[in-house]
Amino acid sequence: MSDATDVLLPPLRIGSLTLTSRLILGTGGITNLEVLEQAVAASGTELVTVALRRVTDRGPGSLLDLLERTGVEVLPNTAGCATATEAVQLARLAREAFGTRRVKLEVIGDEHTLLPDVVETLDAAETLVDEGFEVFAYTNDDPVTALRLADLGCVAVMPLGSPIGSGMGIANPTNLAIIREQLEVPVVLDAGIGTASDAALAMEAGCDAVLLASAVTRAQDPPAMARAMRCAVEAGWLARRAGRIPRRRFAVASTTDVGRPQLGSASGTP
Amino acid sequence: MSDATDVLLPPLRIGSLTLTSRLILGTGGITNLEVLEQAVAASGTELVTVALRRVTDRGPGSLLDLLERTGVEVLPNTAGCATATEAVQLARLAREAFGTRRVKLEVIGDEHTLLPDVVETLDAAETLVDEGFEVFAYTNDDPVTALRLADLGCVAVMPLGSPIGSGMGIANPTNLAIIREQLEVPVVLDAGIGTASDAALAMEAGCDAVLLASAVTRAQDPPAMARAMRCAVEAGWLARRAGRIPRRRFAVASTTDVGRPQLGSASGTP
Amino acid sequence: MSDATDVLLPPLRIGSLTLTSRLILGTGGITNLEVLEQAVAASGTELVTVALRRVTDRGPGSLLDLLERTGVEVLPNTAGCATATEAVQLARLAREAFGTRRVKLEVIGDEHTLLPDVVETLDAAETLVDEGFEVFAYTNDDPVTALRLADLGCVAVMPLGSPIGSGMGIANPTNLAIIREQLEVPVVLDAGIGTASDAALAMEAGCDAVLLASAVTRAQDPPAMARAMRCAVEAGWLARRAGRIPRRRFAVASTTDVGRPQLGSASGTP
Amino acid sequence: MSDATDVLLPPLRIGSLTLTSRLILGTGGITNLEVLEQAVAASGTELVTVALRRVTDRGPGSLLDLLERTGVEVLPNTAGCATATEAVQLARLAREAFGTRRVKLEVIGDEHTLLPDVVETLDAAETLVDEGFEVFAYTNDDPVTALRLADLGCVAVMPLGSPIGSGMGIANPTNLAIIREQLEVPVVLDAGIGTASDAALAMEAGCDAVLLASAVTRAQDPPAMARAMRCAVEAGWLARRAGRIPRRRFAVASTTDVGRPQLGSASGTP
Repeated sequence: MSDATDVLLPPLRIGSLTLTSRLILGTGGITNLEVLEQAVAASGTELVTVALRRVTDRGPGSLLDLLERTGVEVLPNTAGCATATEAVQLARLAREAFGTRRVKLEVIGDEHTLLPDVVETLDAAETLVDEGFEVFAYTNDDPVTALRLADLGCVAVMPLGSPIGSGMGIANPTNLAIIREQLEVPVVLDAGIGTASDAALAMEAGCDAVLLASAVTRAQDPPAMARAMRCAVEAGWLARRAGRIPRRRFAVASTTDVGRPQLGSASGTP
Repeated sequence: MSDATDVLLPPLRIGSLTLTSRLILGTGGITNLEVLEQAVAASGTELVTVALRRVTDRGPGSLLDLLERTGVEVLPNTAGCATATEAVQLARLAREAFGTRRVKLEVIGDEHTLLPDVVETLDAAETLVDEGFEVFAYTNDDPVTALRLADLGCVAVMPLGSPIGSGMGIANPTNLAIIREQLEVPVVLDAGIGTASDAALAMEAGCDAVLLASAVTRAQDPPAMARAMRCAVEAGWLARRAGRIPRRRFAVASTTDVGRPQLGSASGTP
Repeated sequence: MSDATDVLLPPLRIGSLTLTSRLILGTGGITNLEVLEQAVAASGTELVTVALRRVTDRGPGSLLDLLERTGVEVLPNTAGCATATEAVQLARLAREAFGTRRVKLEVIGDEHTLLPDVVETLDAAETLVDEGFEVFAYTNDDPVTALRLADLGCVAVMPLGSPIGSGMGIANPTNLAIIREQLEVPVVLDAGIGTASDAALAMEAGCDAVLLASAVTRAQDPPAMARAMRCAVEAGWLARRAGRIPRRRFAVASTTDVGRPQLGSASGTP
Repeated sequence: MSDATDVLLPPLRIGSLTLTSRLILGTGGITNLEVLEQAVAASGTELVTVALRRVTDRGPGSLLDLLERTGVEVLPNTAGCATATEAVQLARLAREAFGTRRVKLEVIGDEHTLLPDVVETLDAAETLVDEGFEVFAYTNDDPVTALRLADLGCVAVMPLGSPIGSGMGIANPTNLAIIREQLEVPVVLDAGIGTASDAALAMEAGCDAVLLASAVTRAQDPPAMARAMRCAVEAGWLARRAGRIPRRRFAVASTTDVGRPQLGSASGTP
């Protein structure tokens, strides 16, 4: 019964990529490739991010082998880099290794919180765009930095909702909304999602897609959570387009029959 | 692409009713029956609430005619009643008119906020249960009142998220979670939903279903919002079962590659 | 420097009582009477609630002795009662024992969450008001119940912010604001306060006073927290009267010098 | 009664300045100098920020004249600058004009939201610190940027709560807490405060002081709001030191008399 077969979200173009799914999956935190495969299938994703070291093993049964089998696009990321120099080096290696000029740029400013270093990120983005990369730039939720990244030519700007792996959800939806209004390239929520309502909220705030890893890979049932996230992303996308009712403190009746019912008129006898 | 055809939520039993959809639609606020019909279809709902006055017209083109055509169950409600006496009277009329002993009990304590009057609601519930009704009891989010309603024999307890028609979402998710833990009968979130993430959050808090009216009927595009809500309810239900990651203030890396990447080991040449 | 000597809040009348302090202290959770004495002094309170059993010992060094010495009024409460009958009995005993017709009515509906039972509370309130008590009624944050309690003749209505001892703060400030608008008797926030900003928020939402126990008695430094709460209550009261700026998503400049500075005009030389 | 005369917050050292008040006032938005003077007095502040253009008039009845009369320190700010170059120029002019090497550095990245441009801010901070300025750096709530500003030698780092003039309060208290843990220099909340509880919350999150302008200057009663903010800042500071109780979803009783009262033992006769 509960199928949603006629949901037809318009395709999302990010650089040279066209996606019909608005959910991007990270592989960090995964401990079992079989479970990952099920989660990928359940999520409906067409794009999966992988840290470079993970994909160096390309043999049968490897992560890369699995992803190729599922037919998803692989987006190498520069996870673990702390400087622009490191990130640029790693991106170049990824390009060689995978024959793709797409890269998720991630430069961490603090090993404890894993928050991005926006100065190094901007530096690296500038270099990578110059070198012809399609840069998906992970950043914090600062609208001014987001606009700078877009102005540099990143194909997607990816603000966090809250710190990587925290599951704290969308700390500042207002910032996401401002980012969406000010940028022309796709905005992808990246990091912080804990559960389905977080993903829906990100889309309602105007994000074009959601990237998440731990929320699925570390859930008790990753494939079930992957499906939940898929539904949530669609729900949030649809809700934004459907034009929600305003919030108002005092109620407006949800029936037109407010006031005492006219029992007499309904039945003839009260 | 974005189908979710294999979402198979377990059926929900409320009294003598078995639902496979967890979304219940109210008709309050609707201005166009054609749009309502599309919204009902898009929502996947199997149960629609109707205020008694609305359904007295049973001719072709009436609301009732439409609902019969779509095949959904009709749940008459006592919207507009301010006392137990009125609500009981109206419920009896509804039973006669519709041949159903199901009733959504709604006794309003304040015409301005439309908040329920729990004392009158408890009184009416006791009478109606005694008279053999299956009572779906609209109430506030107080766990003690919810438990009393369940103890009286209501087949579903329906706490609000926030005032009817306010679109303020789930003001107090903790109360919903407490209610869910303490009751054995289904808990249905009723009132306050504004957008999809609200519906997902209600399900994540433990509700078994969501009832909403204005959020769909007064949205700019009711059928699109109906579909959004359907996806959101499924998303929230799945997410709760999937076992979300804990919230933690400080990040846990979403990749195992945290720390500086060992560029050399990945490629042989840095 | 940091004195606030000219804060002159208008006196608050609750029944036959006139208070110049808007902070009421509970004694639950206290483990050391000396610390309590310091906390009472630091809080500036003029009214302290005590559970009946605690005050039966009236000898030197007892809680009651201490409170008499500090000159505060004692407000006996019916903590621990689960029915109207019990609460009424206990209130009568308190009247005999203390020669006061003031009573904080507290009827708990669930030993686990300590949430109030509004049906029993309403029953007990009716009886006690009839017997000439000045009833300070602890209740949940439901506006309709609050209005019923006021209509019964309670001298103060005391909604919770969140469950007793939870430290969760003000779960639903909107409800408090509605209660304040609809009642003429004083509204006292009771239960849930965790820290100073919670107390300020309760006052900003319109409460006339704040009652708290655990937040002070179980803080690491109860006298320091008592003083913090005193400042917070004054801050919140003042802020409400001072007329806060509206919330707006987009900024309005806080200086009139927005736009590029005209360096030349300021100095003669750019 | 409601004096708080023995609140003795420890002095706060920011660069060469020692403050006993933790509240810093901005003058943006003020329309009446008499009201400003009352607000300054009511706030207890010892430091007031002024945009350069405003202070060029030093004659009798000018803003500067007023501030000198009240005895507060003046902190010139670079409000309105959009680049590091402009901000550095303006800071130099301020140094000449006021004979102070203190400057509040503010470089705006977007005239609409007035959010800071962290890249330009970092650039300007580096130059100004090199030139011997004591830089109070306005920034967003990103912990990594805050740490960079501290590492550059700023004497205070001043993260926003929400956009200037928005009155939205503290959007992300977690970020403030992380900033406080990672920095050794004072952290001053700057921008976004709407009402007293916001200021208290900022201090509870670990800020050493609060700077605000519109919340006071644009309140209906600026002096009353100034006093409210003073109390709130003290309340928040004290509450943090007092060691708040943990938040817990389920209640812990605030009296030791939980459970049915033993009426018999209290009175001899039930």
